[in-house]
Amino acid sequence: MIEPGYMIAPIGVIRSELASLEAAPLQGYEGAPEAWLELTDPVAQGLVGITAGDELIVLTWLHRARRDVLQVHPRGRLEAPLTGVFATRSPDRPNPVGLHRVSVLEVDGLRLRVAPIEAIDGTPIIDIKPVLAQSDDR
Amino acid sequence: MIEPGYMIAPIGVIRSELASLEAAPLQGYEGAPEAWLELTDPVAQGLVGITAGDELIVLTWLHRARRDVLQVHPRGRLEAPLTGVFATRSPDRPNPVGLHRVSVLEVDGLRLRVAPIEAIDGTPIIDIKPVLAQSDDR
Repeated sequence: MIEPGYMIAPIGVIRSELASLEAAPLQGYEGAPEAWLELTDPVAQGLVGITAGDELIVLTWLHRARRDVLQVHPRGRLEAPLTGVFATRSPDRPNPVGLHRVSVLEVDGLRLRVAPIEAIDGTPIIDIKPVLAQSDDR
Repeated sequence: MIEPGYMIAPIGVIRSELASLEAAPLQGYEGAPEAWLELTDPVAQGLVGITAGDELIVLTWLHRARRDVLQVHPRGRLEAPLTGVFATRSPDRPNPVGLHRVSVLEVDGLRLRVAPIEAIDGTPIIDIKPVLAQSDDR
């Protein structure tokens, strides 16, 4: 039995120089800047063990995305055929969870400085996981 | 301003021979079986473009996880020091989103046969994304 829904509570927010979607590259490796992950005090204990040099997967809630879009022209190229959003990395999708692989540059209490990340300033963070080479890099 | 929460609506469910958490390996590469991803009819258009042989990232909602856990002994080894959940792949975490890299073996309408995946039967699916080697395999 599938529940109708689950409530996600943000654990923090992205602080970035990217102020608008128009300023953001489509993917992190396409020139995205570094940014600070600002975590909230209630989850502080969950950060223990993260250090500079770690490779992390950051999951965000792409709060500016459209949830009613099921097909897109990949990378906004109108000449490309319409493709299902689950076959693309479009931010527009039923559950707009962003997936960002980053390196940790600095740990400062509840803040992590990471790069590269294409999420804009104010994007809610919903989870952080370490990269597992055997799982994620096959 | 961070919203207090966002509602995630499952887009499908895992159909697996893994009936219990006790039967499931900790990670997909540790001997996890193949399984069917059964998507719901309203998101059917979102699957257009996915074909056998694709590498996907499946995001699930680990509905049996505990959301009040912030530190764990990694891999359940009591001799390992307590570590923040964001530095581990523990299913127990404030927002229990599961991240699974899989290969597509077969596409059959609203169903995708994939492997390997350690999520148990009945686990809700919340998103599917293609692997982007440049983003995900650095």
